[in-house]
Amino acid sequence: MDIPLISHIGIAVKDFEKAVQKYAILNSDQNPTIHDVADQKVKAAIFKGGCCGGGARIELVAPTSDDSPIAKFLENKGEGLHHICIYVEDIEAKLVELKEEGVRLIDETPRIGAEGNKIAFVHPKDMNGVLIELEEFPKPTL
Amino acid sequence: MDIPLISHIGIAVKDFEKAVQKYAILNSDQNPTIHDVADQKVKAAIFKGGCCGGGARIELVAPTSDDSPIAKFLENKGEGLHHICIYVEDIEAKLVELKEEGVRLIDETPRIGAEGNKIAFVHPKDMNGVLIELEEFPKPTL
Repeated sequence: MDIPLISHIGIAVKDFEKAVQKYAILNSDQNPTIHDVADQKVKAAIFKGGCCGGGARIELVAPTSDDSPIAKFLENKGEGLHHICIYVEDIEAKLVELKEEGVRLIDETPRIGAEGNKIAFVHPKDMNGVLIELEEFPKPTL
Repeated sequence: MDIPLISHIGIAVKDFEKAVQKYAILNSDQNPTIHDVADQKVKAAIFKGGCCGGGARIELVAPTSDDSPIAKFLENKGEGLHHICIYVEDIEAKLVELKEEGVRLIDETPRIGAEGNKIAFVHPKDMNGVLIELEEFPKPTL
C-alpha cells in the first residue's frame, strides 16, 4: 500500500508570530492554519504538505503557558526540531517490533490523538536523537 | 500549484547499519536505497516517501571520513536532525524574499545538487534552529 511516510514535522519556536512570518515565505502559496491546543498548552501553525493532500506538514509549535511541555523543551534544548510523525498501518504491531529491537517506548500502548487516530511516541535516545511519533494510517472516520 | 512541501529530512547518525535497521522497522514495506556520496564523504540510506512518489523522504546520513561535514556535525551536536529540505518553485525569488526578511543565507546564489536541480541552504540561527535546504521543483529533465 502506497501510504505517505511522514505525517508531519513539529518545530518548537519561541516567537510564534515571527516564526510563522518566516516559514510562510517558504510556502507563500498558502496561509497556515492556526490552532490553540488547550490540553497541551500550545498554539500551532500548520503548513499543509501539498502533494494531493498526503504530503508531510510542518507544524510550528509555541507554548501558551510556562508549564507546557514545549516550554520545558525550549528551556532544555532551545528552538529546533521537536518530533517527526511517521504513518504506520498497524501501530500495535510496530510497537512490538520496535520493543523487540530494544527501542524504548514512551507510550507502551497507543493513545488517541487530537484527530481521533491512534498515536504513540518512541524514545529519542533509541532513534538517533529524534523523537518519533507513530500515527496509524488511514485515520478512522469519525 | 500543488507541489509537495517537503522534499526530505536528513538525520545524522553514527552507527549507520544499526540506524538503518531501526528505521527500517518504521517502513517495513520497503528497503531503503543506499548511496555513497563521495564528494560529501558520507553514505546515505534513503527511505522513499510514498504518497504517489511525491512524499517526503527520510535520509539517514553517516560520515565515511573524519573530515566529512557530517563528522563535524556529530562531534558538535551529536546524532539527530541535520536538515529539512523544502521544495520551492522559484529558488532565486525565495532567496531574495528571505534576505529581505533578515534571514542569513549560507548560499547567496543557488548551486546544483546531486540530482541536477538547484539547491541552497539557509542559516539555522534565523530559522528557529533548523537548517533549511531549498530545492527547486520540479526537477529538471536531465
